[in-house]
Amino acid sequence: MSSVAERLKNLRASMKAAGADWYFMSSDDYHCSEYVADYFKVREHFTGFTGENAFLLVSDSEAKMWTDGRFFIQAERELAGSGVELMRMGEAGVPTVTEFLKDNFKEGGKLFFDGKSVSASYGRKFEKIVAEKGGSLVFDRDLAGELWEDRPDLPSHKVMVLTDDITGEDTPHKLSRIREKMKEFGASAHFLSSLDDIMWVTNIRGRDIECNPVALSYMYITMDEAFLFLQKSEWTDELKEYLNKVNIRLFDYFELDGFLKDVAVSGKVLLNEDAVNYYCLKTLESKAALVSKRNPSTLMKAIKNETELKRLKEAYILDSVCVTKLGYWLKKNIGKTEITELSAAEYIDDLRRNTEGFVELSFPTISGYGPNAAMMHYSATPESYSVCKPEGMLLVDSGGQYLKGTTDVTRTFALGPVSDEVKLHFSKVAAGMLALADGKFLYGCTGRNLDILARLPLWELNIDYKCGTGHGVGYFLNVHEGPCGFRWKYAEGVKEAVLEEGMIISDEPGVYIEGSHGIRIENVILCKKGVNNGDGQFMGFEHLTYTPIDRDLLDKKYLSEKDIERVNAYHKAVFEKTSKYFEGDELKWLEEVTAPL
Amino acid sequence: MSSVAERLKNLRASMKAAGADWYFMSSDDYHCSEYVADYFKVREHFTGFTGENAFLLVSDSEAKMWTDGRFFIQAERELAGSGVELMRMGEAGVPTVTEFLKDNFKEGGKLFFDGKSVSASYGRKFEKIVAEKGGSLVFDRDLAGELWEDRPDLPSHKVMVLTDDITGEDTPHKLSRIREKMKEFGASAHFLSSLDDIMWVTNIRGRDIECNPVALSYMYITMDEAFLFLQKSEWTDELKEYLNKVNIRLFDYFELDGFLKDVAVSGKVLLNEDAVNYYCLKTLESKAALVSKRNPSTLMKAIKNETELKRLKEAYILDSVCVTKLGYWLKKNIGKTEITELSAAEYIDDLRRNTEGFVELSFPTISGYGPNAAMMHYSATPESYSVCKPEGMLLVDSGGQYLKGTTDVTRTFALGPVSDEVKLHFSKVAAGMLALADGKFLYGCTGRNLDILARLPLWELNIDYKCGTGHGVGYFLNVHEGPCGFRWKYAEGVKEAVLEEGMIISDEPGVYIEGSHGIRIENVILCKKGVNNGDGQFMGFEHLTYTPIDRDLLDKKYLSEKDIERVNAYHKAVFEKTSKYFEGDELKWLEEVTAPL
Repeated sequence: MSSVAERLKNLRASMKAAGADWYFMSSDDYHCSEYVADYFKVREHFTGFTGENAFLLVSDSEAKMWTDGRFFIQAERELAGSGVELMRMGEAGVPTVTEFLKDNFKEGGKLFFDGKSVSASYGRKFEKIVAEKGGSLVFDRDLAGELWEDRPDLPSHKVMVLTDDITGEDTPHKLSRIREKMKEFGASAHFLSSLDDIMWVTNIRGRDIECNPVALSYMYITMDEAFLFLQKSEWTDELKEYLNKVNIRLFDYFELDGFLKDVAVSGKVLLNEDAVNYYCLKTLESKAALVSKRNPSTLMKAIKNETELKRLKEAYILDSVCVTKLGYWLKKNIGKTEITELSAAEYIDDLRRNTEGFVELSFPTISGYGPNAAMMHYSATPESYSVCKPEGMLLVDSGGQYLKGTTDVTRTFALGPVSDEVKLHFSKVAAGMLALADGKFLYGCTGRNLDILARLPLWELNIDYKCGTGHGVGYFLNVHEGPCGFRWKYAEGVKEAVLEEGMIISDEPGVYIEGSHGIRIENVILCKKGVNNGDGQFMGFEHLTYTPIDRDLLDKKYLSEKDIERVNAYHKAVFEKTSKYFEGDELKWLEEVTAPL
Repeated sequence: MSSVAERLKNLRASMKAAGADWYFMSSDDYHCSEYVADYFKVREHFTGFTGENAFLLVSDSEAKMWTDGRFFIQAERELAGSGVELMRMGEAGVPTVTEFLKDNFKEGGKLFFDGKSVSASYGRKFEKIVAEKGGSLVFDRDLAGELWEDRPDLPSHKVMVLTDDITGEDTPHKLSRIREKMKEFGASAHFLSSLDDIMWVTNIRGRDIECNPVALSYMYITMDEAFLFLQKSEWTDELKEYLNKVNIRLFDYFELDGFLKDVAVSGKVLLNEDAVNYYCLKTLESKAALVSKRNPSTLMKAIKNETELKRLKEAYILDSVCVTKLGYWLKKNIGKTEITELSAAEYIDDLRRNTEGFVELSFPTISGYGPNAAMMHYSATPESYSVCKPEGMLLVDSGGQYLKGTTDVTRTFALGPVSDEVKLHFSKVAAGMLALADGKFLYGCTGRNLDILARLPLWELNIDYKCGTGHGVGYFLNVHEGPCGFRWKYAEGVKEAVLEEGMIISDEPGVYIEGSHGIRIENVILCKKGVNNGDGQFMGFEHLTYTPIDRDLLDKKYLSEKDIERVNAYHKAVFEKTSKYFEGDELKWLEEVTAPL
């Protein structure tokens, strides 16, 4: 019996003892974070699936795990033999987890989950399903977590305070803008538990989640006070002095529960039901009327200010140079010295580590050779990695956390001969990436209006990539940051974010052919205002990323005149903006690979 | 004092007597129709504005009329001197009518409107605003209508019954599909008041609204019965016999009120709050729980069946031939005989009248010369029209109601020399229209994903057209038919319709330069399935419209290679599909104007 099967057996025994018909696990921490500290990886412990986004439903006879298209290939592999069935989100005929539960929940049944590790919006959905069947919800117990022997500790690292020359806006000013929005929504208090939002508001950074410079924390803001909850072990004298100066009262992380139960609320509490846990929601709901809206800080944070943009542009140039150097190193050494997925990742990680202002990686470098690159979030490990041969392609998706900002970039490199089909796919991915970056649009558009610009060249080949085209990127914060992004799918009632000047978003179409090859080209682009005339405010983008697109993989017969123009203009800019960081053979090579097609 | 100012004065006197602080008028009939019979043109009577879409709010000192971008130029002209202020919907800083009312409604105020002429969804919004201010709503009186001397009669025309070889699906089958959806929504009854939906369900057609083959009617459907309410004066023996056969009980139109008040409802009533009037809503609401969803028939009707598509394709070929003949006539006669906007419209109207299966126009032909074409919904009248000169362009937007379907097509013709700028604009409009028609996409896309394909060539010039790119089209029904369409604007919570095989939608980008010129090129395109593979169901379109795009206005320097390919492929198809309808000089000309660029 596999260890996962053994764990599920124990869980079922515990469920039986507690009277649970179903047990639900999301992949969340207490803050609905996308990436979580090891302490919170309960769902991973009970499935063996290491991807970030999944839901697990367990009954006495069934165990079903939902995940999205980015992870289908990986999940199939990791779930094999575990007894956990894969549910492919978004595929025709596959019910969502709530649809499934609705159809399979029996009259008077009992659903258990850890209310702190499940978002309020999911809790609400379950509440409704269970109520319709006269059943009950038990959410004040971490039944699965209790069974986890050797569960890691909660992370704890000292936080750092950022100065105004790094942030461009001080905390009192940010708080005053948030209070204006609270007023607008008719709220007298605001509960905030999204870690990156709290970091942005307070101008501090933590290290509690790998690659995400956040500290586990909660915040409660009223019209004249602000409260920050943070593990005592993370406090520093600098922090206390700073928070005192900006009028934020500091409490231990574990004091939140008591605080929420005791606090007197007059008026409504603003929070985002998609971004607070169900347990906190229920506590607050028992005290006051709630207004659920996107956290005001989420949009404010997405719109980078002048200081941030100036620094980001510098960070992206230096970061792009690392990628270019990786490309040069790969091309010159393949077939001569052994290159593996791991050594390529180490090479670029080292380049970043030696770059000004580097703090840590913004996510573990993805380095996938050949068919491995078809797994969007493939991760080579010392136990399992491929050796690169002088043929086919290596995909490297990587980025850094710098004091000047967060980067994210993907290039796919030819290591030797590739098929004509690969060149077709690569050329169309490049065409799509550049077409989106070149998109002109009227203010009011969201990513859903524009996604097709990147995707059309692939849709014309009857090929799709099973993910959005791009995500917002933080400023020395999470590499995936809402609310903006490029996605095409429609779902009734899902909120979209109008594209605003100052937003930075990744633009990363790809082709993923299972068992054959994977291509992704990713730039981060900055949304900017264009002409304003009687027809409205026109908008466009500029590139932040400046590193060559491998011309060995481009074939002019698959590019339109306009595509070729765009490649040439982009490469010209790459050379102009980065050539000063190269010399000798590297510079000569850069000149060659950025010359017009 | 203008007659409008006089009428407003009388209205204000009447409002004062009744104690109304505000009086609201939409442009609706009792069925939320887009176009209405003259009887319902109360808002037009009190503003002088002849466009279809407008809201009027009147207080003792203010009169504000909201309309959308299609009508800004026309509204400015028609409202001049009336004392009615134009509110431009969708423009930055312009509140919506509900936002305005919210900000300006005083505590305890009274809002009056005719509940039968206002949609339930607007009534609901007003309800909320008024309740927040402790005010009251009076909606059971047509206060404005009462003041209208010489108000026209309600229209009344005998209805016609369509045979199955025309409809492709009989009424019992349609009703059974609707009942399945009622079950799905947990409803035991369905109230339907959208005229085109009722026509589609019952397979009858009327003539109560000009160009819209509908009869004023309501329908009430239960799991085993169906009731149709139709003016007695419109009944025929054929209708009674037919309805008897398909198990629909027939009542007079005016019996609805009593019926709704008396009917016993066990269970929920399905209706569409956006498509029933507020008065009916409130009556039903007092009797039963309501489920508000899009009417099931709306989506069913939009997906044309095989019979409808076969007949539509034939109708579009014959209708396109009329447009081609107009083009020939214009080119051969301009500068030789007098051509006016009116005579051009009459010419094509006559061609349609002589076409097989013609019933009536699908809307009054729009024929705009020179700057007039910049008004999207310009209408030349015997009192005011332009004479065409052998220079500039004539825009003709026209269509027919045929027993084989409803058509809608726009072509813009050069009548002589035009500026380089005009050629640039025309070339980009043509490029956008063809790019959208050539769009490939994955099932699940809505018009919002695709709109940019038509608009991008213009957005790249910092030009926008202030309307959607296209609308669904009926089958021998309304020329504007929901739920599908191509539009880009995002509004939270607005429902979109996934594009389904069998939907027919107009594709009509344009350029409108006030005081200078107007260009619109409109084809109707049919949504079709493409390849289905592991990535999903791919989709595309095919043209239904086959009439030349004026090559005198196309300049290759403004077209990409791909654009030129698309123009040539389209013109080749125009010649292949329609040449058999031409002979002699006309045929020779067709060959020339459809030759490759």
